[in-house]
Amino acid sequence: MTYSLNSQQVAEASKQWLQERGVRIEDIAELTFFLQQNYYDTLTIEECQTSVEQVLSKREVQNAILTGIQLDILTEEGKLRSPLQEMIENDEGLYGCDEILALSIVNVYGSIGLTNFGYIDKLKPGIVQTLNDKSGPHKHTFLDDIVGAIAASASSRIAHRKQEEKEKKGLLPPS
Amino acid sequence: MTYSLNSQQVAEASKQWLQERGVRIEDIAELTFFLQQNYYDTLTIEECQTSVEQVLSKREVQNAILTGIQLDILTEEGKLRSPLQEMIENDEGLYGCDEILALSIVNVYGSIGLTNFGYIDKLKPGIVQTLNDKSGPHKHTFLDDIVGAIAASASSRIAHRKQEEKEKKGLLPPS
Amino acid sequence: MTYSLNSQQVAEASKQWLQERGVRIEDIAELTFFLQQNYYDTLTIEECQTSVEQVLSKREVQNAILTGIQLDILTEEGKLRSPLQEMIENDEGLYGCDEILALSIVNVYGSIGLTNFGYIDKLKPGIVQTLNDKSGPHKHTFLDDIVGAIAASASSRIAHRKQEEKEKKGLLPPS
Amino acid sequence: MTYSLNSQQVAEASKQWLQERGVRIEDIAELTFFLQQNYYDTLTIEECQTSVEQVLSKREVQNAILTGIQLDILTEEGKLRSPLQEMIENDEGLYGCDEILALSIVNVYGSIGLTNFGYIDKLKPGIVQTLNDKSGPHKHTFLDDIVGAIAASASSRIAHRKQEEKEKKGLLPPS
Repeated sequence: MTYSLNSQQVAEASKQWLQERGVRIEDIAELTFFLQQNYYDTLTIEECQTSVEQVLSKREVQNAILTGIQLDILTEEGKLRSPLQEMIENDEGLYGCDEILALSIVNVYGSIGLTNFGYIDKLKPGIVQTLNDKSGPHKHTFLDDIVGAIAASASSRIAHRKQEEKEKKGLLPPS
Repeated sequence: MTYSLNSQQVAEASKQWLQERGVRIEDIAELTFFLQQNYYDTLTIEECQTSVEQVLSKREVQNAILTGIQLDILTEEGKLRSPLQEMIENDEGLYGCDEILALSIVNVYGSIGLTNFGYIDKLKPGIVQTLNDKSGPHKHTFLDDIVGAIAASASSRIAHRKQEEKEKKGLLPPS
Repeated sequence: MTYSLNSQQVAEASKQWLQERGVRIEDIAELTFFLQQNYYDTLTIEECQTSVEQVLSKREVQNAILTGIQLDILTEEGKLRSPLQEMIENDEGLYGCDEILALSIVNVYGSIGLTNFGYIDKLKPGIVQTLNDKSGPHKHTFLDDIVGAIAASASSRIAHRKQEEKEKKGLLPPS
Repeated sequence: MTYSLNSQQVAEASKQWLQERGVRIEDIAELTFFLQQNYYDTLTIEECQTSVEQVLSKREVQNAILTGIQLDILTEEGKLRSPLQEMIENDEGLYGCDEILALSIVNVYGSIGLTNFGYIDKLKPGIVQTLNDKSGPHKHTFLDDIVGAIAASASSRIAHRKQEEKEKKGLLPPS
């Protein structure tokens, strides 16, 4: 039978794999709230969650999630060839393919997300810290970057939406 | 008075500046049709045009259009400082900021557009050839790349839409 | 024992994995020659080969090679989880992580390589065509893009070198 | 007379323009030191300065510097067309071409620099804070991102060099 992509299946798998690896949508929404709370007084965690869900509906984002988590799982199972196995296992400093996949997520909502991605990746708030804890049962090399990238994208999306809202309310000066 | 962005104004300016520099939406739609006609039997030029218009509605795309065209105009007027003036004026081979701005357009619709962008930039079909003709009244260093990037993005968007249509029609195997 | 990266080992593995997957450095050099022959009269295939080898000496490039080939191999062995397995196996049109890894190679030598990458990826000359032939024993989803990206990077490097040579020979007008 | 690029002139201009806009190489070296001091006990400010100078010797980096500073200057002089003039003048939140140019700098030393770039851009230490002070005589929209990107690239370069040094000293386990 000829292969035919089933988008629904891809979308569901990406959500399910995130959950299996210990990441809830709420966790990412909290990162987004952390990034944006100082800019918008009335921002709610629910808005952040909606924004995360919209980001997760993009195929480019789903592709990166599936690919990154798959590599993390195979690494945990020791199924990669040496020296790649050791490089990913040890989250090696000069290995940057995790950042590259993350960048492909950020790019979908534009370059204004770059800063937030870098900030989260360095500060490691909330779930990112948990994912980075190497003492737990899971080893994540790709997932922490991916989660940070989703939160940064959701932040960019909020920035775009808030601007739209402001303009709709007529809060603009005459052009 | 406090500055406040007027998105409508940004959107209109980006369309108007394109037109002033000799690029009609139909011209970009033709590039998109050129890229996609072999993949979809029933594709029409109208679908391509709709897709181009959707791409043009994105702020990230508008930012790149305005910035690139502004640099082209200032170069034409000889208003840049040396050596940047000569570098852009001569579309210098090692100067790649035009490709960088173009890439920011392509990225919005994901990495599958990269190939189409490179292909157009090399083959220079239709309007891209016209823009590259250095004997005309205008000198375009940024605009040809930007136009190619918009066409490539519109192609990516069509690929996503055609998949959606196929799935809606139930042409998928059971998952 | 504490993990410690052995760069020599990473470099060697990336060359060896390429070879095992049917790609010789000469094959990539030919792509580079194909891309650049019209621009430089005296360009030799040996220069192209040297340039390819320099590109291959970069860690960022090696990371992408190892990661891409590993994913190709695991896909061939059917070891990925569904639906990622089917997506990569069928080189699915909306899956762009192969282009993303390739882009990370191109970027190391700057944005002027983007065009050449896209052109090769579309035209599929030489070894790229062979890699794309789905009837052979191997299935390559990542490798064809990676090989095209290495050739494009080697082309960018040649453009930079030729400019240097020209300037050293005093073929420049007074500034 | 035919145009011919003079690379020396481009390199010198990029250094001179930085200086004219109030950025000394030492300032960028301090940012790099700030980013890397916790990772390398023996790191000196001189090493950081050397690394910054190496980054500045890359054409892709020089292109971004010249283009970004030129746009900042023209904006200061009010020479851009509306609405681009107002967008850049006000460092508008949804305008991301400054981040895009910066990304092209970071990419030259690989994706591991992304995180550091985002971190600096958010924290605004040292010279970045000074550049962001909108009360001074100069308005910088592009330059702060460019300076952060150079510092992040210099950090990536140091990470690569330190690894090399370690391996040369034989501090590696047998492979």
